[in-house]
This record gives sequence, structure tokens and C-alpha cells, in this order.
Amino acid sequence: MSLSDLSREQLADLQSQQRAAYDELVGKGLKLDLTRGKPSPAQLDLSNALLALPGEETTTDAAGTDVRNYGGTQGLPEIREIFSPLLKVPVEQLVAGDNASLAIMHDTIVYALLKGTIDSERPWGGGPVKFLCPTPGYDRHFALCEQFGIEMIPVDLGPDGPDLEAVTRLVADDADIKGIWIVPTYANPTGAVYSEEVTRTLVTMPTAAPDFRMFWDNAYAVHHLTDEETPAIDVLALAAEAGYPNRVFVFASTSKITFAGSGVSFFGSSRANVDWYLKHLSKRTIGPDKVNHLRHARYLKSPDGVRELMRKHREIISPKFALVESILSERLGDLEAASWTHPHGGYFISLDVMEGTATRVVELAKQAGIVMTGAGSAFPYGRDPQDRNIRIAPTFPAPAEVSAAIDGLATCVLLAATEKLLAC
Amino acid sequence: MSLSDLSREQLADLQSQQRAAYDELVGKGLKLDLTRGKPSPAQLDLSNALLALPGEETTTDAAGTDVRNYGGTQGLPEIREIFSPLLKVPVEQLVAGDNASLAIMHDTIVYALLKGTIDSERPWGGGPVKFLCPTPGYDRHFALCEQFGIEMIPVDLGPDGPDLEAVTRLVADDADIKGIWIVPTYANPTGAVYSEEVTRTLVTMPTAAPDFRMFWDNAYAVHHLTDEETPAIDVLALAAEAGYPNRVFVFASTSKITFAGSGVSFFGSSRANVDWYLKHLSKRTIGPDKVNHLRHARYLKSPDGVRELMRKHREIISPKFALVESILSERLGDLEAASWTHPHGGYFISLDVMEGTATRVVELAKQAGIVMTGAGSAFPYGRDPQDRNIRIAPTFPAPAEVSAAIDGLATCVLLAATEKLLAC
Repeated sequence: MSLSDLSREQLADLQSQQRAAYDELVGKGLKLDLTRGKPSPAQLDLSNALLALPGEETTTDAAGTDVRNYGGTQGLPEIREIFSPLLKVPVEQLVAGDNASLAIMHDTIVYALLKGTIDSERPWGGGPVKFLCPTPGYDRHFALCEQFGIEMIPVDLGPDGPDLEAVTRLVADDADIKGIWIVPTYANPTGAVYSEEVTRTLVTMPTAAPDFRMFWDNAYAVHHLTDEETPAIDVLALAAEAGYPNRVFVFASTSKITFAGSGVSFFGSSRANVDWYLKHLSKRTIGPDKVNHLRHARYLKSPDGVRELMRKHREIISPKFALVESILSERLGDLEAASWTHPHGGYFISLDVMEGTATRVVELAKQAGIVMTGAGSAFPYGRDPQDRNIRIAPTFPAPAEVSAAIDGLATCVLLAATEKLLAC
Repeated sequence: MSLSDLSREQLADLQSQQRAAYDELVGKGLKLDLTRGKPSPAQLDLSNALLALPGEETTTDAAGTDVRNYGGTQGLPEIREIFSPLLKVPVEQLVAGDNASLAIMHDTIVYALLKGTIDSERPWGGGPVKFLCPTPGYDRHFALCEQFGIEMIPVDLGPDGPDLEAVTRLVADDADIKGIWIVPTYANPTGAVYSEEVTRTLVTMPTAAPDFRMFWDNAYAVHHLTDEETPAIDVLALAAEAGYPNRVFVFASTSKITFAGSGVSFFGSSRANVDWYLKHLSKRTIGPDKVNHLRHARYLKSPDGVRELMRKHREIISPKFALVESILSERLGDLEAASWTHPHGGYFISLDVMEGTATRVVELAKQAGIVMTGAGSAFPYGRDPQDRNIRIAPTFPAPAEVSAAIDGLATCVLLAATEKLLAC
């Protein structure tokens, strides 16, 4: 029986049950953190071989370049060759950087603001700049926009891409709209996977801004949770075919493949955009950490090496996703007290609780020692218009902790819902 | 007998000797590169232990933090503790970053341009920005200014600091002057060492801009070439004492201590400036490569570990500096055909040839297969007003190559000088 079908009496009964459960929960003094999409120690252990690589005798790459010295702004060919087919970016259009793709996104925005893109009449920083933000989305993308005063326009994100009617209309009309954030594969936090059809529309649509850019953050390109290993879309080829070769910036990293803090990041785009990026990057650095590139190349060996490693990750994390699914289903399913996503990959489950209660749920959970990402964090400016979305990041805690946290969270969801319904 | 004392006939004789030597030189088909201050393979070999560190069993730092995962924006305490006394920056005011201090310089400028410093009324980018550039100086500093349209004002650099009369007058008058580039220890390329007295004037002088910053790039803080190991000046304490605690940004890295491309960079300043830097940095990255920090901490062990390693570097490179000195002295000394610096540390020798001939010398050398940094590169906009300065970087080539290159260069210096004198 659904929550909305319950009488006030039944609701009051439910509430006192949940109140009792909540009091018990608080009494347990839990300390659980489900805030960030971090790999667990067991996942990190998979790549411990990296900690002793490339080995004392290995000082050069295949071409004979001394990896210890300065230079090589585009990054080591070996590591670019491994990720080229996985990301569908030609080796010569792929740049390997330091440990954070977020940094490359930051820097491309900085260069656009201060110098302009190759298609810009003037630097973006000279006037108002707006970005489309499919929501729910990634809070750190939105934080970059806020940092630089870029106005964020939310558009709804469905299971295979954003509301295309809204997107195409907005970009056609407003030349200040310079970008759109996209996590094409297993989007953070909903798990949406952009279809080729949606992608084709995005690379083909006319835009009022000649220097419009798609920030294609393929953070979870190879992070499958099922046998169905959705391949990356060749978005650069589609864009070139559509006559907009410079429209797309591709980003990725090994943060959730090898080590979250010590991986390799990637940038891919048209040759002209890559030249633009490297020209500006070369003022900032004499080159990336090539030893780390070589270390990764020696460890990962090939695209299949990456795929194999990702299957080991899946073995560790898919049971945690299954736990979340089963507990949410058991505790909230019949009552229809919430809905949530069933991702085929990535790092998150997006939970929609009763409208107007997400903030209260997160607050209740916090008081019970279960720290969730702040309500609204998946929306521009932290404002969830319906106050219902909560991001669940189940990868880091141990399975027993995931269970305890999600069970406690379910109690908070029900308690907040009955509070709301009974207050009417 | 000095060049200027030679008769036309003697000059013509000298020229034909040098012409013959030059023709012979060209005939040798040399391929020598003295352009950049790069460590040699033998220097890099000193730190090959890093290539297998921290080892497969080592996943946490002393505090128990998992170095493989996200986080820790300020960098690993262990590595900051080692460099704190060497750089004279309190551990809690020192940030450890990725592989390039140039990147931190770039980013502090970007943040100041787009967001303003903590003492700025508005972002620097809103109006004209000027930097004082002691010359000869470091070309990559000047390239950063050019990149962002920062007007460069050259001031003469002496053996213990810049022309203070000019510096204090300029900064007192012009509120658009927001910064000064400083390489305080063994400056690139002259080897100048800022005295405490000069430093005290710089941190004490009134500036029209309330948000004036000294970009104190202590790239060669521990890179001594003699027994006299000049310690770093405690510039942050001096600035605080003078009532300008936020005036100084300190930069450094291990690029020329461990691996040029895979080291650790540092940023130090007042607590308030460090908070400002980290606040902006946290939008760009979730943390630096902490595994590399731990790797370095395990390898270097202590400040004395760094000092000991630097003495091994000195054993390798000081004979190369001695070679340059002896060849220049032998070939050019009696004729007074050039003057050059006698650095007690760092990576360069600054050669001043006859006025108006540096471009020609570099061109002649290039045609003989000896590539030098472009004439004028140590000056803002690449313009050496007297066309006389050439930067010599003797660390990378093997000793025999250094000899061949410097001997060839001396020939070019004499040939160009006689050309000039005979053309009068």
C-alpha cells in the first residue's frame, strides 16, 4: 500500500514505528560517510603494483625518451595508446595529463575566459557566460561555474540525455550560452547513458554562439556494473561529421581505475582544439608527470588490461549497489515512499524522496551519524527546486556499513515523509 | 691585450683565425643543445630509487591517511616537513603540489586576474596590470606575463638584488604594478643572490597597490655549487615583521633535486594567502598526487637527506661550470671580449658579449650545430636593449660536449665581435 493511500491513523502508526527505529539508530552512534564517490581500499588494492613501478631500471619509454626529465607536454604515447580506443579519441588528439581531469576542465574554462577559444571573437571573460546544466548533475562541475561567475541554466536530464527540446531552443537563441556539461556514460548521479541519437542532436544543433563547447566528461567510460559494457560514443567523429569539429572537449581519468589521487587524466578534442589547449598549457608547465604515465602503461598494458581491471572493480562494488537496491526496495518499495535509479555503471544511485523532504532527510541522517552529500548538491547553486534529490555513493564503505547506512537512510526517508504528510 | 686596443690589422688577423676556426667547427657537424636548464641523466640516476617507491606494501602516510585516495589539498605533511626548514616556510603555511612550481605561479596569477587577491578591491583582470621584471631574468616568468597581457617593466638586476632606487620609486607611484618576479637564490641566469638587506627593503617598501605581490621563486634554494651553502632568507617572517604579511608568494620544487618532470612543487605564504590559494585550488582538484609526496618523503627522509643529495648533484655539475669558466677565460679573457658570471649555485652562467652582437653569436652557433637559448630570451618580450646577453646552461650535456660547445661558442663570440669592429 502506497504512502499516499494511508489514512492519518495509519500514517501516525508508521511514524511512531519509524520514530522508534530512528531513536534506536541514533542510539547506535554510527559514523558513516556516503558523501563522495571514492573507491574503497579494496579497489585501490587492485592496483598496488603501481606502488613499485616502473622499477629502478626503467627510465625511458618505448621511443627512448627519458621519462624523468622535462618535456613532452602531450603526455607519453604509450598511455595515450591504451586509452585512445577506450575513449574513442585518436592517439594524436589525446593529451595525457596529471592526476585530475577536473583540473583540465578548470583550465579549459580559464583559457576560454582569459584568452578565448579558437572560435571566439573575444575572450569569454569579456561578457556574460552561461552554461547549460543537465540536472541532477555533478556538483564539482557546477562549482567551477560558480567560481567563475558562469550563469547556470538547469535542463532536465532523462535516462538517455537532457531535454533536447529545451537544449536546442536555448542554444539557438542565446549567444551567451557557451557550454553544456555532459557526463555521457553512467552520469553522476543518475546513471544516465547518452544515446547516439541524443549525441548526434547535440553535435548537430545550431548554436547562436560560434564558440559553443560540449564539456564531455567521460569519467565513467569503462566503469560498468553489468555484463553489458556500453562502449564510448565516438563523439569527436560525430561532431566532425556534423561540421562542428571543435564543439567537443572530451575529459577522462584513471581516478576510479587505478588510484583516485595518483592517476592520469586525459583531454581529447579536434586537432585544432588540442593545439589551442597545448599552446596555453605550455605556459603553465614544461610537461606532465611522465614517470606516472609510464608506471600506468606498464601496469595496465593494453585496453584489454583496463577492461579486465574494471571487471575486478565491478566484482567489489556491484554487490554494494545490489545491497542499496534491495534495502531501498524492501523498506520503501511497497510504500512508494521514494524512487531511485538502477544504474548499469558509474558510482552513484540517485534517490528521489517525497517532494520537499530531502533537506530534512539529510539532516535526520546526519544527526544519526550517517553523512550524505548535502540535499540539492546535484543542482546548480545547490538548489533542488523540488527538494527531493539525494545522491547515494555506495562504493567506499564496506558492505556492512552500506547496509547500515541505507537502512538508516530509509528510516529517515519514512520519518520525514510522515512528518510532512501529517503536518498538512 | 683587449679587443678594443687592437689595430684594424690585428683585428683582421684575429678575424681570419676565427673564421678558419669557425669553418672547422661547422665541418665537425656538431649537434649540441645548451638551451635549457635540465638535469643530466647522471643527475637523474641519483634518484632512481624513486622509481620503485613507496613499494607495494606502503599505502598510508604517518598519520594513517590512504595516500592512494582523493583528498588532502595541502599535500602530505611528511614532505612539507622536510622542505619547511629548507625553504624557511612554516609547515602549516606550506602547500605541496604536483610536479611544476611554474603551474602554481600560473594559477596564482590566474586567480588574481579572475578573482583578485585577499587584498584586492577587484580582480586584477579588470584593468591594466604591470609587473617589475629584474633582468636578465627567467624567460618562463616573462612568458606568463605575456600570456595574460601583463605589462613588463624591466629593472636592472645586480649581484645581490634589483636596482632598489628604481623598484621603490616605481611601486610607490603606480598602483597598476601588482607584482615583481624574484629568483632570490642563484638567480636564473645571473646567479645573483638576494641579500637580507635588499629583501628587507622589498618587503618594507610602500607600494601604491595594496595587493602588490613578490613572486619569490626559490627554484635553486638548495642548489649550491660551492661549500658556501647560502641558506634561504626567511622572507615570510621579514614581510610579517614589516607589516606586509601577505606580500610574498614563495615557490619551489624538487624538479632539479629529484626528477625534473616528476617532482613535487611547493607554495608558501601567509596563512591568509594559503587559505586563499587552497580555496581556489579546491575548485580545480580534489588533491595532489600524494603517492608521489610519500615516495619523495621516503626517499629524501629529512632536510639533511636533501642537502646530501644536492652535494651529489654538485659533484656532477660543478666540473661542468668549471669547464665553462676555464674555456671562456682562456679564449676570451685576455681579449676582454666578453664578461660572464661566476655563480655559486643554480643552473646558469650569464654571458655578456660585445654590445650588439648577441643575436649574431647565437645565429653563428646555431649554424655550427650549437643551439643556445635565443638572444634576448632573458629579457621581457625577448628584447635585450643592448643585444649582448646569452644564457649558458651547462648541466645537461656531458663534459666533453660542454667543452666542445663552449669552445665553439667562444669562436662565434670572437668572430661576431671582429665583424662588428671591422664594419665600423
